Amino acid sequence: SSPRPRRRLSVEQRREQLIAVALDFFAHHAPEEVSIDDIAAAAGASRPLVYHYFPGKQALYEEATRRAGRELAGLFDEPQVGPLSERLHRVMGRYLDFVDAHGPGFAAIMRNGSASSSPGTGAVIDQVRQAALDAVLSHLALPDPSPRVRLAVRSWIGNAEITALAWLQDEKGRFSREELQLALVQEFVAQLLVVLVHEPGLAPAMSGWLAEEQPDGPAGLLLHRLVALLGD
Amino acid sequence: SSPRPRRRLSVEQRREQLIAVALDFFAHHAPEEVSIDDIAAAAGASRPLVYHYFPGKQALYEEATRRAGRELAGLFDEPQVGPLSERLHRVMGRYLDFVDAHGPGFAAIMRNGSASSSPGTGAVIDQVRQAALDAVLSHLALPDPSPRVRLAVRSWIGNAEITALAWLQDEKGRFSREELQLALVQEFVAQLLVVLVHEPGLAPAMSGWLAEEQPDGPAGLLLHRLVALLGD
Repeated sequence: SSPRPRRRLSVEQRREQLIAVALDFFAHHAPEEVSIDDIAAAAGASRPLVYHYFPGKQALYEEATRRAGRELAGLFDEPQVGPLSERLHRVMGRYLDFVDAHGPGFAAIMRNGSASSSPGTGAVIDQVRQAALDAVLSHLALPDPSPRVRLAVRSWIGNAEITALAWLQDEKGRFSREELQLALVQEFVAQLLVVLVHEPGLAPAMSGWLAEEQPDGPAGLLLHRLVALLGD
Repeated sequence: SSPRPRRRLSVEQRREQLIAVALDFFAHHAPEEVSIDDIAAAAGASRPLVYHYFPGKQALYEEATRRAGRELAGLFDEPQVGPLSERLHRVMGRYLDFVDAHGPGFAAIMRNGSASSSPGTGAVIDQVRQAALDAVLSHLALPDPSPRVRLAVRSWIGNAEITALAWLQDEKGRFSREELQLALVQEFVAQLLVVLVHEPGLAPAMSGWLAEEQPDGPAGLLLHRLVALLGD
């Protein structure tokens, strides 16, 4: 049980290393289960050295949360090429991989149940939601998205959060990542259909999106079966 | 500006009065904007008297949150009579009234951005979500709801939370409570349709629910227009 040798790192490298180690801890444990000592030990650093870079665990937690939030927001970047539902399917695949890899950390921040929740972590959540909204709206490529379209996208993002959280907490044995990924995209299409029912003016855009869909893609499968079901 | 006269209250009455005053404050202000002095003044009580009942603001906030959570969970109680979508429409009406009446407090607890978030308030949110899930499942009256049905209901509850929050924060001028109420119920029906596409075994139950629906009810209107749209 000899301590790990200290590596010689520049100030910036050391700071980044501590954040990376903290990210890893906070991804796999609730914040209240993590101590500065854990992080120092895993980084091969002394406790005073960690405190030299960060005033305390809360500051490290908030920085790690900001980094994770930036990464999560970045997962919504997707080239605007190909059928809409397949783009969102790729985004949701990355989203669920992220949730899977950062399980307890994602749960802690989203559950609002952590002693380390703060205005800082709340702002990160708001920023991720905003980035997700902007990204999805950019794929819809509407010149002026109506309030109803915007709200449908926001509520679908909330749906994805809660679904991912439920999957992590209780349902993981009962659902594969692939089943969930497909269901989330199809729920998005269903949300758009509800908007369309209230805003017939969305019909040309909707026809445009659907024209690019493949029959066996996420939207194609849903619509094909819905037509069959509702036709009965 | 003379202080209000103290009323003679029993210990239990005084405690309940302080909670009621705190609930009102926390419903209309973010927790960080509320002080024990505000609550004492509004209750016609001294600061030491408030501290006699509660160790501090956090304890009062948590108790107020528990009460609000219990009230919110209770709004999901609805007699199992009449068309399913009309029952949910009444539940969503009460839900949106609650959100409207407790605006800043609802936002603070749901945004996870409050300095007063804690494991206690997180547990309240979990309990409300669980009560909402149980209530909605009881209306579906399935002998053994599948994981997919359970997850769809949970994600719809998340959808309602986020939608209500977005409505409070940004969209209130653009949506009436009634528009939102109807859209939420129709999104529930749309979620069930997505489940049905993957679980044909749900068809008999779905037919049973739809048989009770009115043509101009929330589900009837949606399905009628969907059939017309998808038929094109």
